[in-house]
Amino acid sequence: LSMESRASPRPGGLSYCVAFSQLLGLTVVAVTGAWLGLYRGGIAWESALQFNVHPLCMVIGLIFLQGDALLVYRVFRNEAKRTTKILHGLLHGFAFIIALVGLVAVFDYHRKKGYADLYSLHSWCGILAFVLYVLQWLVGFSFFLFPGASFSLRSRYRPLHIFFGASIFLLSVGTALLGLKEALLFKLGTKYSTFEPEGVLANVLGLLLAGFALVMLYILTRTEWKRPPQAEEQALSMDFKTLTEGDSPSSQ
Amino acid sequence: LSMESRASPRPGGLSYCVAFSQLLGLTVVAVTGAWLGLYRGGIAWESALQFNVHPLCMVIGLIFLQGDALLVYRVFRNEAKRTTKILHGLLHGFAFIIALVGLVAVFDYHRKKGYADLYSLHSWCGILAFVLYVLQWLVGFSFFLFPGASFSLRSRYRPLHIFFGASIFLLSVGTALLGLKEALLFKLGTKYSTFEPEGVLANVLGLLLAGFALVMLYILTRTEWKRPPQAEEQALSMDFKTLTEGDSPSSQ
Repeated sequence: LSMESRASPRPGGLSYCVAFSQLLGLTVVAVTGAWLGLYRGGIAWESALQFNVHPLCMVIGLIFLQGDALLVYRVFRNEAKRTTKILHGLLHGFAFIIALVGLVAVFDYHRKKGYADLYSLHSWCGILAFVLYVLQWLVGFSFFLFPGASFSLRSRYRPLHIFFGASIFLLSVGTALLGLKEALLFKLGTKYSTFEPEGVLANVLGLLLAGFALVMLYILTRTEWKRPPQAEEQALSMDFKTLTEGDSPSSQ
Repeated sequence: LSMESRASPRPGGLSYCVAFSQLLGLTVVAVTGAWLGLYRGGIAWESALQFNVHPLCMVIGLIFLQGDALLVYRVFRNEAKRTTKILHGLLHGFAFIIALVGLVAVFDYHRKKGYADLYSLHSWCGILAFVLYVLQWLVGFSFFLFPGASFSLRSRYRPLHIFFGASIFLLSVGTALLGLKEALLFKLGTKYSTFEPEGVLANVLGLLLAGFALVMLYILTRTEWKRPPQAEEQALSMDFKTLTEGDSPSSQ
């Protein structure tokens, strides 16, 4: 299936899809900024505009950067595995810091205004996504970057790490859609049904967010776009196979 | 990778996961019913309760049945491919009919009340999901059940069909979350922040919906749970490979 490894050229379709995903992701960030600038008075920390820091930071951190971190292994196909891993961990680290600023902004805003916290479906999904994100980062770090974990442990954890990564990303996008809807309904109320420009722009933003998620999912699930195992990894994997074949028949 | 085909036993983990997904899916349907019964006055066609037909039908059709239709190839591993295909198409057909009733209910309700249609992000995502669902069914039918399409055409279309199927399912779940949030905010308004029982129940329903989607995604993406090719398909596929090997080197 994948004997022709080392320095495999990047598949042409992959390059186009990644370029498209980046265009879509940057558009999502730009439209979020435009929405906040045009209809919500812009952004500032020390004022009622503090709330607006929340959607912008979450979109940059937990949508755009988190999404890009997932693509690292597809895009950097021939770099050493360790370099790619560090880049993957760093991008997620940046995403975490920016998302944390976004979270502090909304909790601080709620506190100043005396609003209740964590009552809405948006907030429940969001907290769940953020906690899972941090856990995934910590578990991922200790398995893949920390030198302790064995090759066999890594191989068994890898598919779960990938699945949870994609799930947390999708949950983040779903949470963003819920937050957008909440912000619209709180402000526009019944005016939403008269096709107010803000409502239409936000709907477009919602579709762009969903589109970004699906393009990411497409890139991540195409089998032939997966990173081919490098020469040294392959040798190691073969050794490992030879050593353990038949040794654990119960593991399905 | 898959030489040991015919009558392969269903992997144990798959059975547990499918059972869990069904439990979760039925819980989603039951909680939707409970929400509508306890806090929305129940269901009827010829009254203001007509609206309530919409969420119940969409959840049964576009969430539960659509989800189950995606699992058919994982669950029926040893039945003839054609039988499995027909079941897959039939389940999607039922899902379509039930969803159509749900759509007629909401448009009819809006018409009677004089409400505007298709202004919200929920409705935009919903119409997109439904139109894509119908298109996917029609294209899928003409490629896979209609006898015309060649083996090579089917092989090339299959991965796209699977990707779009999963995407439409995820978009449907996202749309349900948006609709749930809309229904809550329209009725509860600021009371949502006081942890009203209806709000809490609806939040739990939202998390169950997201959980159902992720369990489905897990089952669908586990490589070793894919349906193994049957003996006759494998022979055909080998013949085909022999016939065409080297014949289309440009197709990546």
